Parts: sequence; structure tokens; C-alpha cells
Amino acid sequence: MSSGYFRQNHARYLEELEAFLRIPSISALSEHQPDIRRAAEFVEGQLRQAGLENVTLIEGGGNPLVYGDWLHAPEKPTLLFYGHYDVQPPDPLNEWISPPFEPTIRGENIYARGAADDKGLTLILIKAVEGVLAATGTLPVNVRFLIEGEEEMGGEHIERFAASGDARLKADACVICDTEMFAPELPTLCIGLRGIVYGEIVVRGARQDLHSGVYGGAAPNPLQAVAEIIAALKDRDGHIRIRGFYDRVRPPTPQEMRAWKNLPFDEQKYLREEIGSKDLCGSSGHSLFERIWALPTFEVHGIRGGFTGDGAKTVIPAQAVAKVSLRLVADQQPEEAVAQLSEAVKALAPQGIEAEYRHLHGASPSLVNPDNRFIRAAAEAMTEIFGKETVYVRSGGSIPIVGIFDQHLGIPSVMMGFGLPDDNLHAPNEKLYLPNFYRGIEAAARFLELAALQTG
Amino acid sequence: MSSGYFRQNHARYLEELEAFLRIPSISALSEHQPDIRRAAEFVEGQLRQAGLENVTLIEGGGNPLVYGDWLHAPEKPTLLFYGHYDVQPPDPLNEWISPPFEPTIRGENIYARGAADDKGLTLILIKAVEGVLAATGTLPVNVRFLIEGEEEMGGEHIERFAASGDARLKADACVICDTEMFAPELPTLCIGLRGIVYGEIVVRGARQDLHSGVYGGAAPNPLQAVAEIIAALKDRDGHIRIRGFYDRVRPPTPQEMRAWKNLPFDEQKYLREEIGSKDLCGSSGHSLFERIWALPTFEVHGIRGGFTGDGAKTVIPAQAVAKVSLRLVADQQPEEAVAQLSEAVKALAPQGIEAEYRHLHGASPSLVNPDNRFIRAAAEAMTEIFGKETVYVRSGGSIPIVGIFDQHLGIPSVMMGFGLPDDNLHAPNEKLYLPNFYRGIEAAARFLELAALQTG
Repeated sequence: MSSGYFRQNHARYLEELEAFLRIPSISALSEHQPDIRRAAEFVEGQLRQAGLENVTLIEGGGNPLVYGDWLHAPEKPTLLFYGHYDVQPPDPLNEWISPPFEPTIRGENIYARGAADDKGLTLILIKAVEGVLAATGTLPVNVRFLIEGEEEMGGEHIERFAASGDARLKADACVICDTEMFAPELPTLCIGLRGIVYGEIVVRGARQDLHSGVYGGAAPNPLQAVAEIIAALKDRDGHIRIRGFYDRVRPPTPQEMRAWKNLPFDEQKYLREEIGSKDLCGSSGHSLFERIWALPTFEVHGIRGGFTGDGAKTVIPAQAVAKVSLRLVADQQPEEAVAQLSEAVKALAPQGIEAEYRHLHGASPSLVNPDNRFIRAAAEAMTEIFGKETVYVRSGGSIPIVGIFDQHLGIPSVMMGFGLPDDNLHAPNEKLYLPNFYRGIEAAARFLELAALQTG
Repeated sequence: MSSGYFRQNHARYLEELEAFLRIPSISALSEHQPDIRRAAEFVEGQLRQAGLENVTLIEGGGNPLVYGDWLHAPEKPTLLFYGHYDVQPPDPLNEWISPPFEPTIRGENIYARGAADDKGLTLILIKAVEGVLAATGTLPVNVRFLIEGEEEMGGEHIERFAASGDARLKADACVICDTEMFAPELPTLCIGLRGIVYGEIVVRGARQDLHSGVYGGAAPNPLQAVAEIIAALKDRDGHIRIRGFYDRVRPPTPQEMRAWKNLPFDEQKYLREEIGSKDLCGSSGHSLFERIWALPTFEVHGIRGGFTGDGAKTVIPAQAVAKVSLRLVADQQPEEAVAQLSEAVKALAPQGIEAEYRHLHGASPSLVNPDNRFIRAAAEAMTEIFGKETVYVRSGGSIPIVGIFDQHLGIPSVMMGFGLPDDNLHAPNEKLYLPNFYRGIEAAARFLELAALQTG
């Protein structure tokens, strides 16, 4: 189909995106539960409006999944479209130029929490299906939508559902819009994701908080201990010092390494404009793409305990908790990494201190074959719409659903990237580049046509 | 004078103490400014009621000082009585058995924030002077009271006032009730205090918070960096690794070391009942009293940055701030320690990270000669009232005013201890042992008489 239909609808797409972004559907904060429900119902309405059938909220001890399907293309493949309607917390609030839940357009970008991760990209898939159905009265393939509301907090509901064997999950491939383009005009497919192990290092010292003058020199300090444990878990070169942790790491193929070298990339510009620190960190002897795509990491996300307000409280806290994560790469296994980390934390507890790792959630890494027929169809669709050869990259992030679908449904995931590297995911001033939003809809629509032509 | 007068007034003393403890005069939290003023006015009323003259609030760009005097004993020494009406923040609130600002008696203790530090002990001095004046119509020495409201947050106002040369500061010795007895029935004088350097290690990485999946492996993590810096500043044996830091440390005399060995003390009981951790920490080769009284420390009090709420936020924060302190011993100097720490922090910044020490406040350590005439008078008064030989100890804490009076007024400080080792200063369930409150009033009154007999 021609792109005329889509172009006529840009203003409406933008209005609907803005309405979606105004809902502060933060899954990590329990006070936003009513917003989670509003966001789920918004998606439900969008699926109905798109012409999907069997639209429903799937409840089940967590934030609802939103489901809808169109299954009138016998003999054709079935695609399972995935997205998520929940978003990250917006703090630190004072660093936002415009409020996180008042979508604001500056230049060609729309700024709001969730603009790129993942409300904007979820809407791309819905609008593509809506457009093809509206313009042609039919779809060239069968589609199912499964949009979740717990992606930013572990996604237990969708994992249980995927494991349940529900017939609504039957598909030949999953399509996910939750990754980014490598560069603004460069069509990109992501074929690898890192997994994650997220939890807390819990460190206990004295029975209660103590005065650092009276007891300093005798009482063990859990904040000092957690600092020592964290410092010991990773050396200054970025190498993680956990026994056996690298044993299963599969290095990238020589072809992949060569392709990465040819990507249009200026490391100094990346440092200066995207990161903005004095220097990059990381393992010497490994290229940047190896470090962010093909090597595991250990990161600290926050340390709780003691006194962090204004003024001076001279306390030795009874307890400290560090929120930490490991990113995993193929073929590391979350369960094994949890066991290795737990053992390492326990062994590193200093004198007088008890330390343990308390696991919160995990996700497997994934790596798909670029020769898969749906990957090829997606690459061709994107090349057509964006007018450039599609590149294959990996992402350093984790999309747990990819590992879950691989494990429970045995289907590959096609990750079409429409976000941009400077979209500020999980950070203040998250944004979406609007030209990608509109072109993404056309590319996803073209993908439906090309996927129908593929034979297995 | 006999103790009869004091005994008749116990019920009233307790009521007045409870009224004082109900005021949440937390100097570190700006929202409690009205309570700071209420507490200052409460002390002002107490001084008037005691029969002091020239009672006034001394304002001057900070929390008011409360002053009052009685100067009708010509040829006799003048004693400057010091205390503070501000208290530490009460968090963590959920660990208090009874609310911190609702004084509650359980057994022979009164529980409330400030009970021992320092409202109860400040009231001991006021009630002693009130009692002698009420019972005899006169005082054997001249007295001045100077009660401050910034002790728990750096005490800048009193330092400026002490440096001002104001005539109201003229005295032969300072008397401070802000220390503890070594054991419940053991009269104790404190002759040494640690000093302090308190501030923040500020660590900066990227320009803004970043997603740990997308950027982990490339972007420096300020929380990891601050953990590495903290771990590097102190080894696992408690030794502080800052160049030149121990150069001025004066070891205790052999006499002092012998006296400490004879103190009634069970280290296993201390560990089990007072600290409650698995083990003590600290420098091997040094006794416990050396470690808490005669050696410096480095402690972390809190680490800010990133995400510490429930759930999982995979953020690499742009900045992390660790609240830290050094305790200093004679003859270390706060200014020198600040310079040494600043240099050490800067030098420890890992790749891609900027780190600096931001100083908040400092106080000199102090060590007085046990042969001083006022120290001798206080020892004798306490021995009489408590019926046991007074012991000389040090305190690991810091009472900045001792160093300030030494530096600006050139007078020694007599530190009569009426708190107990398990009073939970700066911690939940702070308390005061009421028998010490009542006997402390008698001991302070007897001290007034004995101090009048001393010649310089």
C-alpha cells in the first residue's frame, strides 16, 4: 500500500501518542496502580479502534496484559506483536526541562517519560496494523498483540502467561519495537540482547544505628562494608571478579566484529555528546561495542542506609542495601549468575558483617540468527522505507520477553529499532524523534506485506 | 548543703525534663526551625526560674544561644556552664519502641530523642544551680550559662560568639555535661575527646542519569566510583590510608593505658549487648579503648544517588554523594585533615570520574590535664555523691565547644559524665537513666562548693 494513507493521519497519531504519554503508568511505584490500569485500558481502546478482535485485558496477579488478534489469513504466518505500557520512574524530577507526563514538542522530538520506552514504539505497531486494515480491509498475515505493564519491574505476569501454554500465544515470530536505530537515518535490526540479574546486596552490622563518635573504631559499618564488597566485585578495568562468571560468555563472531567496525560511529562524539563524562570506562583491550553489547557488566543503582539528608548526622547505620545488577550475554544463565553472585557477596563480607545477595528478578540474554526469514523481511521493509541498507546490531539492554518467548514458545524475535541513541531512556528528558515515529509505522506496515511472502 | 532539698523536687524535675523532651528541636532539618525556637525559649524560662540574671537569647545568624549569669561571688572562680538544646534527627522512626518526642518511662529509664544528648544533662546543670540558690540564697562561685542550639549540625553560631571576645564569656573553666559514665555506678570524668571533620565526597560521571543496559560497560558509574574511593580510604583492618594522616597522632601515656586496663569492662558483653554485631572491627594490635578513644576513624554515614526505592530502576546515576567523617585525636588538626582528605579523594577518582571532598564542618580534638584544679574538684564531688573513686576516661565523640573554648578563651573543660554507655545516642530508643539524672544534680551542686575552695 502507498504511504498516502499514513501521512494523512499524522496529526491524529500524534494526538493519540500524547494522550498515552500523559498517563504516569510507573510500574515500580505502587501509588501509580490506578495509572497502570488507565494505561492498560488506553491500549485496549487502541486495539479495538485498530480493528483487532478478541480484545481483552488478561488479569492474573499483576498488571494486566492487553491482548487482541486478527487471524483471517490462513496459510500465512502469525506474528505476535509485543510492547509495554508501563514506564520507568521519572526522578530526578528537577532535571526535566518540561514535566515528564506533559508531553512537549521541541524541534522534531516529543519529550515525555515513556516516549521511546516504550509507548511511542508500541503505538507504531498498533498504527501500522490499524492503517493496513483501514486502507485495505484485510491483513496479509495473522497478527496477535500482547502488550504488558510490568516490563520495567520484572514482568512476572507475562512470564507466567507465556509458560501457561495459552492458545493465544501461538505464533511464528515475535515482533518487538523496544530498541533503537544505530543512527538517525540508519535502519537497524537488533539481533542480540543482554540478559539481567537484578537484586540487592543486604549488609548488616550492629543491632541498631550507632553514634560514630562513641563506637567508631569498634562497630562494623555496613556502608563501608557494602563499598568494599562493591569495589571487590569489579576491578578498575571493568572486569567482574566473580569466580566462573565468564566461563559461558560466547565471543562475537569475526563477521560481527568486522560489521561493528564499519558502523558509522565517532567514539569521541559519543563520549562528548551522549555520555558527557570526562572519559569512558571499561575493559581495556575490548572495543566499545564489545563492552556494551557482548560483555557482561556489574552496576550499582543505589545505596540505602544511614543518613543522606542535609546537615550532618554522625551515624553508623545498622544496615545498608545496595541495588545492583549484572548484565549477561549469550550463553550466560541467570540462575547460575545468581548463585555465583550470592556466593561472592557472602565471601566478601568483612569482619563483623553479614552480607547476602537478595534476588529480585532475572532475564536471559538472547542472540538470533540474522538469516531467519522474518529478520530478512524486516530488514527489507526498513531498507525500503528509510532508503538505506539495514544494519544488524545488538543492544546492551535487556528485553526479558525475548528470552521468555524463546524459552517457552520457541520463536525468534524481530527487533525493529525506531528509537535513537540520544533518547534518554530511563533518564530525565526522555524523548522520541517524531520522523521515526511516522516512518516506523510505514516500515512496520511494509513488514506485514513482506513477512507474508516468506516461506519457512 | 544536704540532699534533702533535691529529693523533694524529683517529681518536678521529671515533669520539666518531659516538657523539654517533647519539643522536636532537630537542628539538621530546616522544617523544625519553629521547634528550635521553642526549645531556646524553654531554656530561657528555665534559667530565669533558676534565679539567673541577664537571661537573654543571643541572636546572630543561626539558632539562638541562651545566656544567663550569677556573678555575686567576688574573688571566687567563674564557671561557664555549657549544654545544647538541639537534638539529632530521630530516623529510622520505625525502630523506636515509643515515639521519639513522647517521653516514656520504662523501668528506671526515660526514653526520648535528646534524653541523654543533651537535654537531660543540660537540665542537671540548671537544676543544680537552681537548687543551691533556692536552698541557700547564694552560690559559692560565679556562674554563667551558655546553651546552644546547633551542636548537632556544626555549631557555627557559638564559634563566632566565642571568637568575638564578648565579656559574657570570661570564665576560669567550662563545665560540660555531654559525656557518659563508664559504668552505671561509676563516677567518671572525661579528659579527652576526638575531633571531627565532616563533609561529603561528591562524585560526578556522565552529564545525566543513563540506562545501565544501553550504557553499562562504557559510562562510568559514580556509585561504583564512590564505593572504590571509600574502600581505598580505609583498609579492612581499620587503618586509614591517607598520606601523612597519622603523623601528629599522640599515643596515650603508659599511665593512661594502665588505667584503661583496670576499668571494669567485658569486651564480649560489650559486643553482645551494646553493639550486637557478629564481631568488632578495627585495627589489630590496638586495644578497644585505643581504637575508640585514641585513634582516628573514617566512617561513611550515607550514600545518595541513583534509585533506592522499591522495585528495580536500572540507572547509572550522573552523581553520587557520600556523607563521611574523620574522627581526629590529639594532636591532629582539622584544617590539615581536610587538606589531606581532599587530596586523597581527588587522587582516587577512577577513569572518567571527577571526585572532590566538600567540607561541611570540623572540630579539634582535645585532651586536658587530669591535675587541673577544677578537674580535681569535679572528681571529688562525684566520688562523694556516688560513693566510688572517680575514673578518668576519654570519649570517642566530639564536643566541638571544648576545642573552641580552648582555642578562643584558653580555658579547660570539665566534662562530668552522667549518661550511660547504652543510652543509644544518635540512634533509635535514646534514653536517660533517671537515677543518674537525680544524682547528677546533687553532684553538680557539690562541685560548685568544692570548686569554690580551689586555688589556681
